[in-house]
Amino acid sequence: MFNKNITIGILGGGQLGKMTLDVANKWGLKVNILDADINCPSSKFCNNFIQGDLMDYNSVMNFGNDVDIITIEIENVNVQALKDLEKKGKIVFPQPGIIETIQDKSLQKKFYLENEIPTSSFQIFKNITELKSFIISNKISFPFIWKASKMGYDGFGVKKVSNIEEVNQLKDCHCIIEELVDIKKELAVMVISSKSGEIKNYHTVEMEFNKNSNQVEYILSPANISEKLSLEAENLAVDLAKKLKIVGLLAVEMFLNSEGEILVNEVAPRPHNSYHFSIEGSYTSQFEQLLRSILGIPLGSTKTIQNSVMVNLVGDDGYSGPASYNHFDQIIGIEGVNPHIYGKFETRPNRKMGHVTIINRDLNKAKEIAKKIKETVTINSKK
Amino acid sequence: MFNKNITIGILGGGQLGKMTLDVANKWGLKVNILDADINCPSSKFCNNFIQGDLMDYNSVMNFGNDVDIITIEIENVNVQALKDLEKKGKIVFPQPGIIETIQDKSLQKKFYLENEIPTSSFQIFKNITELKSFIISNKISFPFIWKASKMGYDGFGVKKVSNIEEVNQLKDCHCIIEELVDIKKELAVMVISSKSGEIKNYHTVEMEFNKNSNQVEYILSPANISEKLSLEAENLAVDLAKKLKIVGLLAVEMFLNSEGEILVNEVAPRPHNSYHFSIEGSYTSQFEQLLRSILGIPLGSTKTIQNSVMVNLVGDDGYSGPASYNHFDQIIGIEGVNPHIYGKFETRPNRKMGHVTIINRDLNKAKEIAKKIKETVTINSKK
Repeated sequence: MFNKNITIGILGGGQLGKMTLDVANKWGLKVNILDADINCPSSKFCNNFIQGDLMDYNSVMNFGNDVDIITIEIENVNVQALKDLEKKGKIVFPQPGIIETIQDKSLQKKFYLENEIPTSSFQIFKNITELKSFIISNKISFPFIWKASKMGYDGFGVKKVSNIEEVNQLKDCHCIIEELVDIKKELAVMVISSKSGEIKNYHTVEMEFNKNSNQVEYILSPANISEKLSLEAENLAVDLAKKLKIVGLLAVEMFLNSEGEILVNEVAPRPHNSYHFSIEGSYTSQFEQLLRSILGIPLGSTKTIQNSVMVNLVGDDGYSGPASYNHFDQIIGIEGVNPHIYGKFETRPNRKMGHVTIINRDLNKAKEIAKKIKETVTINSKK
Repeated sequence: MFNKNITIGILGGGQLGKMTLDVANKWGLKVNILDADINCPSSKFCNNFIQGDLMDYNSVMNFGNDVDIITIEIENVNVQALKDLEKKGKIVFPQPGIIETIQDKSLQKKFYLENEIPTSSFQIFKNITELKSFIISNKISFPFIWKASKMGYDGFGVKKVSNIEEVNQLKDCHCIIEELVDIKKELAVMVISSKSGEIKNYHTVEMEFNKNSNQVEYILSPANISEKLSLEAENLAVDLAKKLKIVGLLAVEMFLNSEGEILVNEVAPRPHNSYHFSIEGSYTSQFEQLLRSILGIPLGSTKTIQNSVMVNLVGDDGYSGPASYNHFDQIIGIEGVNPHIYGKFETRPNRKMGHVTIINRDLNKAKEIAKKIKETVTINSKK
């Protein structure tokens, strides 16, 4: 495994790439990074940084030719290039076909339906014109959730739609609409699968969203639900990973509805914001598990070391420009507080600039500290 | 603290520098590194790497002029340059005068004597000729421990001397000789001090040495001694740090003799091999504490998360050349096993190439796993 002659290539150099590099560097592994932005969080910490568009066939092909094992930290990548690299004998995990299914929400939804994975009901539309014709002929009623099939992230490309005016504001693209779920809680489970067939999962966590930005604000580990529900979510996630036959990480986001049913919302075949806590809170971090799974070595223990709450640090409203991080000195002395700053040069409203994991035996205490951090720390472009 | 306009400079780019960079990079801090070896473990992971001799006045001055805060990861540095940088308004921690005392074992010993710090009795000699004249006139009797006053490390520059033939093989330099201590255990305590006066210590750990190489092989956290002795060692270390008035880290190595007395052996004003376990085993790692103390922000909790054993991975006997790391796949699946590979290009007999920290509630179980790792993993230059 610590073979100096193996080079890993990661498509994407954001914070997920950076935190994967932290483990790779701890292990003395060679990792190359491809990203369009030379100032991305990972560019300084890798063996070789290559600037290039992840959606561009030639960029991905050229990058892949120089490495032995290829993985991703974002699903919006050129899949055809990955398929062709696989044909040329490169190891590509997760498998390109699975990335292709997941990067299109309409294909994801179809997969759930065909494989008896519980999910909210949905309809697929080629464009807004087709969607409108269904509304006009009363085949669909308001309100509903609209999602662009491709390229959505962090709440972009997702909207609750209540009337025809709001339909007119939607982007004209291939899309799905989903029935509204009466959401009691949002949950996530991370599954790790190896080529050898080894499969492990972390325990269920709970995601609390910011109501304004529709972004995850807090992650509670473990989720504040019954052991039975927690296990049900874990079994569902593992079942889905097995049906996908994925090698690598699979983050499964789920809804717990008011009737106590668990429905799969969507998945990501890579490290996920909801498991950042695993760096400090678990025996093995999700980033280490990614490396273990693609290297084909035994997976690490997914057991918890301590309860934790993760709070995302996003750019303040009203500021775009060189980032300034403020008031950390007021929270850094609290026991169990672990800040992570991604090193993005510019802040923007709601841009993920870092996170803090608070470990504490008492989850409520950890949540209190997380709230205090959210109220104290600011990220803006003030001098 | 996360002020982008502050640059930290570290003298030395070995594994201690690299593990400090891990925290700095997690926090988005800018760190420059000075080291003579462009292939040193830290060169790829810092903001700016400068190649230069740490003992050379001009190298250190030039390096220091471009940063705001200067610290060390090795005590063999040009102290005059650090003093002059301090005069020019740079922040230098630990203070140059303290580094000067510590880098000379004869000055260290005098300091202990003058400050009533228990230590083994000793004598200082300008050179081997002077030492021999004392032996000839029967003022000294065999056996004794000989130490070069300066530039010793990892068992080099330290010898047990039993007869005049062995004296003739010693390096001719300023030296000390110490009476033999009937060592029951070797202990260490890490103390962290801030400019504000805040002072914290980790619990006492136990060092087990390899009898052939005289290098630390295992660290047991906590030490397998009574609570009373553990506290005594901690109080002694804190007392010493206070008397030195150091800002930064102070690793205090101690002997527990057969009469149950604790004697200070020597100290290091920097991160230390004996506290590597704190990365996984403690709320706050020693490397994070170093950054906290020199940045002047509150220190982190030194509390233990879980018991641990650290095992050093050194180059196999008989091999020098490009390093190959073998059989890790056989131990990587064991719960709580955390390998660190420093990324040194060449292995040499007994060269520190990495370490593994095993966390486990049961310290005996952790020790068993550590022994298995020592027996399994090899580091050599075989193809």
